[in-house]
Formats: sequence, structure tokens, C-alpha cells
Amino acid sequence: MTPAPSLSADLPTPADFADPPTAADHARWLAADDAARPGRVERLRARFEAAGIDAYFGLRREHVRYLTGFTLADGEEKVAGTSGHFLISHDEVVLLADTRYTIQATREAPTARIVDGPRDLARDWATLVASVGARRVGIEAALLPHAVWLRLEAAAPDVELVPIEGWLETDRALKEPAELERVAAACAIADRALATLLPRIVPGATEHDLALELEWLMRTSGAEAVAFEPTCLVGANAALPHGAPFNAEVRSGSVVLFDFGAQVGGYRSDMTRTLFVGEPSARDLGVYETVARAQAAAIADIEARVDGELALPSGRALDAVAKRVIEADGRWPAYGHGLGHGIGLATHELPSLSSAALVDPLPSPTVFSVEPGIYLEGEIGVRIEDLILLDAGAGRVERLTLFPRDAIVLPA
Amino acid sequence: MTPAPSLSADLPTPADFADPPTAADHARWLAADDAARPGRVERLRARFEAAGIDAYFGLRREHVRYLTGFTLADGEEKVAGTSGHFLISHDEVVLLADTRYTIQATREAPTARIVDGPRDLARDWATLVASVGARRVGIEAALLPHAVWLRLEAAAPDVELVPIEGWLETDRALKEPAELERVAAACAIADRALATLLPRIVPGATEHDLALELEWLMRTSGAEAVAFEPTCLVGANAALPHGAPFNAEVRSGSVVLFDFGAQVGGYRSDMTRTLFVGEPSARDLGVYETVARAQAAAIADIEARVDGELALPSGRALDAVAKRVIEADGRWPAYGHGLGHGIGLATHELPSLSSAALVDPLPSPTVFSVEPGIYLEGEIGVRIEDLILLDAGAGRVERLTLFPRDAIVLPA
Repeated sequence: MTPAPSLSADLPTPADFADPPTAADHARWLAADDAARPGRVERLRARFEAAGIDAYFGLRREHVRYLTGFTLADGEEKVAGTSGHFLISHDEVVLLADTRYTIQATREAPTARIVDGPRDLARDWATLVASVGARRVGIEAALLPHAVWLRLEAAAPDVELVPIEGWLETDRALKEPAELERVAAACAIADRALATLLPRIVPGATEHDLALELEWLMRTSGAEAVAFEPTCLVGANAALPHGAPFNAEVRSGSVVLFDFGAQVGGYRSDMTRTLFVGEPSARDLGVYETVARAQAAAIADIEARVDGELALPSGRALDAVAKRVIEADGRWPAYGHGLGHGIGLATHELPSLSSAALVDPLPSPTVFSVEPGIYLEGEIGVRIEDLILLDAGAGRVERLTLFPRDAIVLPA
Repeated sequence: MTPAPSLSADLPTPADFADPPTAADHARWLAADDAARPGRVERLRARFEAAGIDAYFGLRREHVRYLTGFTLADGEEKVAGTSGHFLISHDEVVLLADTRYTIQATREAPTARIVDGPRDLARDWATLVASVGARRVGIEAALLPHAVWLRLEAAAPDVELVPIEGWLETDRALKEPAELERVAAACAIADRALATLLPRIVPGATEHDLALELEWLMRTSGAEAVAFEPTCLVGANAALPHGAPFNAEVRSGSVVLFDFGAQVGGYRSDMTRTLFVGEPSARDLGVYETVARAQAAAIADIEARVDGELALPSGRALDAVAKRVIEADGRWPAYGHGLGHGIGLATHELPSLSSAALVDPLPSPTVFSVEPGIYLEGEIGVRIEDLILLDAGAGRVERLTLFPRDAIVLPA
């Protein structure tokens, strides 16, 4: 039953993974985005009539990049004011950018009409909406604060505001080839970084320092940013799905769980590996192997359906497939979080794979994480997370995370 | 007229600045927060009656930390769901935290009643509000999305929602001693990091690499995080107040502008220095000296008023004082941005110092940046930014940023 753990001699090395993207790769991706944007905007406009709107006002940072090319870093919305907000009518794409962002906006979004982003959106709202001849404006109501909504209503009483949710989120779940390439490139950077870090994962190293070094390795080898702050959890801390505000040291006989990802050309990766430092107990290896089997079962289920040209499973069904493996084994409780999530310009996006997810078949082509876990409070936690590319039309189910997922035992 | 620039021999060194805070410092600050929180909560409750509310629902991450102790990292709101939202009635402080955050919430907010944070706030809204016996709830409407507001209204039609803005922002502008200590500690970490970086600021070094090294230096010497991604701008790029999406190399004869800050115990710093690499031209030195005089004039204005026990200047008046120096000189245009901003748990908070700021006197005790600049498009940009502690009652006007602000010339 017990698989032979890898020995140090078998450890992955940085050279096992793809090189960071080149300037030519980045140029190709930018060109692909430029070519794809008119189609993305038309898909949005095609929904106007049914919703009874003649313009769409958006403010999610992923959306402005997706539709116009204008980029804001994660969190930059907080200081950007109205820069990055956009208004799309049947004829125009209008991008707000204040004087701090004018040069960048002109360069990144050459086909948009750039308008000075006002400090107070309400002040210029009537003029902005009138400039595209709109009367009923769909607004991303899951983002726009209620206080701003009230001010827009007051500023232009004859403009009707219509709350809109989920349109672009649904579109973005379907990935174009150049989007998938960037997710794969981000996976390779994360794979390489962990392989580079392996020799430093030794007894005495701290969670804080290992997480920081992992971030540094990604950001100095091709990642323009991290997808999120890397998590490193030692021993029983790994049983806390969110992590812990402590700073434990690696010990012989403990697991070390890393959850991390890179960002390349705006697109992100997300992976989790749980490594053993020193020979694991039979129990710990059993936990690991059960998680690995749950993950394999979910991926095999998709493969079988794609190979058999059957309907794709739903995110909810896939979550159930993985949980069933752990429950059938019966020794330990299954994870309480979802099995996975889509990823792209945001770390968490559609499709969702969880007990609360849609019962509709998964979209395709798309990319999502498969990350089952077992958490024994106060003892051990194991999670294994890979990104899976699904393109049913092309018969492809492909793991983009290439770091080995067999149990790895590091010297203690 | 022309000041003698510092020579390399005079360059600041890391040892010129305070050591990073110790574990004892952190423990003292946590204890001070614990002692201060009941008073902070009472100041909030004292406003309930006039606003006709019997509870306050908040979601700004700075506010939950300020009032309960529960911490979320910058941007973590996006994945935390309703964890970190809070409801304060006359008798209770209720903190939402889902199972991922339970252990952390119990530890950080021991006096709050912790409630499982629902995935969908509306689902549990009626129960939550009824549990504190409230009927009219003030809500942070500048944060809560409009779509959520609509769902809360529908979920409990007999609960009245009252939009509230600015209460806690106003309170947080007034700083307690332990808050000011942390801002000062964050300043020292930033000062030390730049002093450490100086030998690496040489021709050929890139903006990207220098910014990344500066971040790394702060995060490995006492900062739990950066206040924001450091900016490094070379030559004409420094004329773009927001920065530029390029990656220029340091050249002999160019300026290098760094805008950056650290975070310590939740509190932040923010500083800007513009350094010369190789001997500057008389014009460039003139620009620098004019900016330095504008900054000195604003600080001197506050000092004179505090010394004379006069009314404090408004943020708007102080901005005018600095601009007047540059305009009176007449050779170059004054900066278009504001003169400064308050800082604390957020990088930008009250008070604001700008042409659009309040005409009321500045609050006290408080801390804010003073950061005039001159930007000559396509040629050069110079900004100098220090944090100033103002405590009129104690007769204190003190620079917390201690890195020299005289012109510094690095070897080319």
C-alpha cells in the first residue's frame, strides 16, 4: 500500500521546468489581447438589449484590463480614484484616467477614448453619460459602493441605473489560447521557484522566511508579481486551511505546506505542495496518499468524460467525486472548503468547484484548480493543488502545474 | 545660492537610524491597543443617538482592526468574504469570522462575540441584527457594494439601513502615542533600507530591480509588509507623478526618485527621496533646492503656529504655503497633486493637505506627509516627502523621516 517516498536524489530541480517567458512571448500575448478585445466588447454589447440598457459602466480592475488593456496592480484601485473605470456604449469605449495615468492609458488602451477621471465621479456623471448618448446604464453593482450609487442617482435623475452582475465574470471563465499560455507560464515560474527553494527547507527555517524567499524567487525569475502572498505552514499549522498568524520552525518529522502562485502578463497561477521533512509516519503518508487519490479521481473523471465525448461534469459533481474518495476511505474527514476555483486575471474566478457551485456542466476551454485536502486539527494538514486546463473541444485535459505530486521526503 | 552637495563620504549609513522594533515593542503596542479600544468604541457609540441608529455595521479593514484587533492583510478583504465585518450595538461588539479565521479572531479579538461569517451576508442578516436587538443600522456605505445593500434591504425589510460615512476616518486621524510610535518605527525601517540600498544605485541598475531590492530590504529588516509597492523612477520618468510602466536604467547625470514605505504593527510610513547620480546640472540642483525650500516653508509654518500657540493651519492653507514658494521663485511650475496626507493603518487617510482639503484647522495629535514636487515633463522630476508628527498640545512638530533631505550626489 505505502508508496516508496522519493529520496533526495530524486528531488525536482529548477531545470526541470520551462524557462521564464521572453520579451517575444510578452509581445505575442499583448498582440493576442489586442486582437481579442473587439470580440470581448461585442459579447458584452450583445447583452444590452435584453437588459434594456444602452451603456455599461464597469469598475472591476480585471474587467478594464480585459476590455481595454489598461492595467492596475492588485489593490491599486484604492489609490487610483476613478482611473480605470470605464463606460461602454454601442459605439464607444470610454476609459477614465486622471492626469497621473494619462500616459499609461494612452499607451495601453489606444482604441479607447480617454477622459480625465474626476475625483468625484458624481460631479461628471451626467456629462459622461450624455457624451455617449445613454439613458439607461448597467452598472457593476457588486463593486460600486452604495454611497456612490446614491450620488450618481442624484447627479443625473433622468439617467436610469440598472444593477448588473456576473456578465464579464462568465465571459472570463472561457479562456483564449494566449490567456492559457500565460497561466501555464505562471505555473512554470512557481514550479521552478519551489524547486529552487527545496535545499533551504531544513529544520530551523521559519514559515515567515521560507514564504518570503519563495516570493523573492518568483519575483526575480519572471513573475511581475505574486498571485497572492505565499503561505508556508509547518506541522499542525498546515491543518488551518487559511494559515496561522504564528511563525513556526521546520522540524524533523513535520510537514511543510506551501500555497503560492505567480503572475505573468496579468495572468496567475496557484499551487499547493505538502512536503515531508524527514521520514513520515505511516499515518501521515496515508493521509498524503488519500489526498493524492482524491485529486487523481477528480482529474480522471474529467478525462474520462472528455475522452468519451460525454457531457462535462459540474463543479459541484467534481467536488463530490473527490470527497467521495476520502469518505470511502473513512479514516479521516474530507476538506470543508471547495475542491477548486477558476483562475486567470484574478486568483479566484469562475468556474467554482464546490458543494455550493452550479450544477451546470463546466465551461470549456477553461482552467481551474483541483485542491483537495485533509486537515487533522492540532496534528497535520495535507493539501495538493494543481491547475488543470480543460478544452473539451480539443480533447485536452492537461495539468499545468508540473511539480511532482508524489510524496517528497526532504532530508532532516 | 547653490548648496554644496553631499559627497559620497557623507552618505547616510544604516547605523544612522533606529534599530527595528523588538518583540517587547510589539507586545507593548498590542497592550496599548487593547487598553484604547473601549474608548474608541465608546466614541463611535456616542454618535448613535444623533444619527438615529442603534447599531453600526462596518467593513473597512482598518476599522475592524482599530475597534476589535482582528487583522486582515491589505487586499485580503477580497478573499475573506464576510470575515472581518463587524456589528457594534450599545452593548456588544460582534465580529464575523468564518471557519478559516476562527482561531485568529479568538486570539486577536478576545472581547468580541465571534459569529461564523456567512458566505452570503444577506442570508444571516436578519438573525445577526436581531441578535443585538437593533432596528436602525448605520452602514459604511462608502464600502458596502450597492448590490449587497439591496440584498440586505430585501432580507430584513423591517430593519432600516442608514448610510454612514467618515465617522471612524475622522477618529483615526487623531493618533494615540502607541500609534505614533509605530509610524515612527516604520519610518526608521524605510530610512535604513534606503541607506542600505545606496551603494547599489549605480549606472546600469534598473528601476525594477532597485524597487524590488528596496522592498526586500524592508521586509527582511523589521517590516511585516510594505505600505505599498515601492516606486523607483529614473531621469525624466520621475516627472510622472504616478510612475511609469517602463523599466529604465540609472544613468550618470540622472536623478533617481524613490517613493516607498514600511508597515510595522499595522502602521505605515511613506517617504520620497530624489537622489542625484553624478554631478547635477545647476538647473537640476535649482529644482531640487526649490522643492526643499517649499517643504521647509510648510513645516516652518506649522512650527511657528505651534510655538506661538496660534490656531493650527488648515490642510488647504498649508498646501498654499508650499506652492507659494515655488510660484514666487517663478522658474518652474508647482506640483499639481496635494501637499500631503494623513497616514496610519492606511497609507492615505485624514487629514488631507491639498487645494481641495478642508479649511478647518488640522487635527492634533496627528501625523501626515509633506511632499511638494516639481515635474518638468520629459526632463526631470523632484519630490521630497517626510512624515511630520504634530502634537500642538505638547508643543511638538517633529520630523519622523530622518533620512537627510539635503541634495545627495551618488558616485556615477
